[in-house]
Amino acid sequence: MKNAITLFAAIALGTAAFAQEAETPPPSPSEVLGAAPAEAWQVISPDDLLVFQLSTAPDGSERRIVIQLMDAPWSQKWVRNMRKLAQGGWWDTNSSVYRIAPGFVAQWGDPDEDRAPMEGLEEVGRDDFTHALPAPVSLENPCEDRVLDNAFCDVYAPVAMFKSGWPIATDGTEDWPLHCPGMVGVARDVDPATGHGDTLYTIIGHAPRRLDRNLAVVGRVVEGLDLLRTQPPGTGEMGFYAEGQDPLTIQRARLASDLAPEARPRYKVLKTDSDTFVQWMGALVQPSPFYADPPSDFDICALTYPVREVEGE
Amino acid sequence: MKNAITLFAAIALGTAAFAQEAETPPPSPSEVLGAAPAEAWQVISPDDLLVFQLSTAPDGSERRIVIQLMDAPWSQKWVRNMRKLAQGGWWDTNSSVYRIAPGFVAQWGDPDEDRAPMEGLEEVGRDDFTHALPAPVSLENPCEDRVLDNAFCDVYAPVAMFKSGWPIATDGTEDWPLHCPGMVGVARDVDPATGHGDTLYTIIGHAPRRLDRNLAVVGRVVEGLDLLRTQPPGTGEMGFYAEGQDPLTIQRARLASDLAPEARPRYKVLKTDSDTFVQWMGALVQPSPFYADPPSDFDICALTYPVREVEGE
Repeated sequence: MKNAITLFAAIALGTAAFAQEAETPPPSPSEVLGAAPAEAWQVISPDDLLVFQLSTAPDGSERRIVIQLMDAPWSQKWVRNMRKLAQGGWWDTNSSVYRIAPGFVAQWGDPDEDRAPMEGLEEVGRDDFTHALPAPVSLENPCEDRVLDNAFCDVYAPVAMFKSGWPIATDGTEDWPLHCPGMVGVARDVDPATGHGDTLYTIIGHAPRRLDRNLAVVGRVVEGLDLLRTQPPGTGEMGFYAEGQDPLTIQRARLASDLAPEARPRYKVLKTDSDTFVQWMGALVQPSPFYADPPSDFDICALTYPVREVEGE
Repeated sequence: MKNAITLFAAIALGTAAFAQEAETPPPSPSEVLGAAPAEAWQVISPDDLLVFQLSTAPDGSERRIVIQLMDAPWSQKWVRNMRKLAQGGWWDTNSSVYRIAPGFVAQWGDPDEDRAPMEGLEEVGRDDFTHALPAPVSLENPCEDRVLDNAFCDVYAPVAMFKSGWPIATDGTEDWPLHCPGMVGVARDVDPATGHGDTLYTIIGHAPRRLDRNLAVVGRVVEGLDLLRTQPPGTGEMGFYAEGQDPLTIQRARLASDLAPEARPRYKVLKTDSDTFVQWMGALVQPSPFYADPPSDFDICALTYPVREVEGE
């Protein structure tokens, strides 16, 4: 039998104590999600899915990166810019994944950056990295209870939580999306106005939360993250590809809504206000024979928010 | 100019406010380490470096994974077992890196697990995952100040800290090493007694801190982590290599002290009780033109503890 360390043992038996009380073991997190009713899921609009078609794999199979664009009210200037860039064919020319810094980020766009920016993009600035709440909110300190609920103890902010399926932190006057694994940000130069949304990165290692509020977070990778994580490291400075290294070519990028219906990726995201969300969190802290001593609370970035491919039809 | 998101901008100019007060910008974290005096570093004993020699790369270059074994008082039964396994040639036969679960772990050892365990290994159990403090210690809650010092606010434990260069958490009665990126653990079956130290894993994604106190942490990868991070994902269940996938072969494993002097890797670790350690932490939270809004505190697992190759002679 293979020594397995798994997030949650596939065989989700209860603890001995539990087993005396109940006939059937409690469901595992994946069982909770598998049994969720259709209404617990929100199908992602094809206007919110951005598809980067890559060069085919050595074995001839298709490869792509699919991003879910961030929902309002966060980072919407960049999201609108990204839709314009896709519709204007920006990434269909001279674009590639040209930076792999293992444990940190994968970055893509135009590696030469000698094209004039696309016309008609919205101006952005430091104030756009966060969203001002309509009215100040008073916060309890979630580090006191250390119980897993949707008010996470957080090292970098007073409170973190999932809002509309996104990892978000708040200080009571503003809130902002977080640099968790798989989240997509906008690269820039020193001046925050330089990052319009044509050069993107995703987090492939431990969450670099120091980037929060310093760079725009504009979505998450829903397909292709493992491909990015396992590309050859860039041998240049900071993980940029050096002369002679072959970057992963981007052939074109389109919104799913601009693809033929049969070519569209289709994904759904768990509704944060569903019963299934509450059950999923409960299952995460359930002891099992393998994990006799599970944590009672989680770092929000240690959780991968449930997004699944829509099956069938 | 390339859009760069870097941990800390190479050009560590001060903020505008700082620049008015000082003539020279404060040093960056890497500048602090580069300028550290020799006595700030502890050279790692060759008895504490375990070298896994791998098959050569396609271009003919040598490849290896080098692990620094955990210092006392943590996990010493496994550490002693690992020295015995290396000296007995355990990993010289039928051993490979046969599980790559991107964003989670790389695992290596004997994939078949049909050999009888090596004789003479120490028995291990659940109690060995932690170390009992000689006397209870009363703890302050470091989540209240949110200032970067060596008492980290932590979601999974009352306090986290670096002790002798290792990420450690405590509840005041016990302490234990943490599943941070690059840390090495011992795979096992459901029974904690099944993990003697012959099957190992390292963390290649976001720290899965839920594993703390449920599995043994026995060291860290000081060389070869990016190689593991970028291996092809296992296509079997949970990232295990499927039939037909070529795992990365381990040719042999030896303690550095059992290698010829010229073949020994040589590494040094920053002393946690040095002035340089304090200066390094101070540099981490210094604003820069790129990061106008750096965090005031860090998640301990977001920091890579300074370990460097010993140069020259």
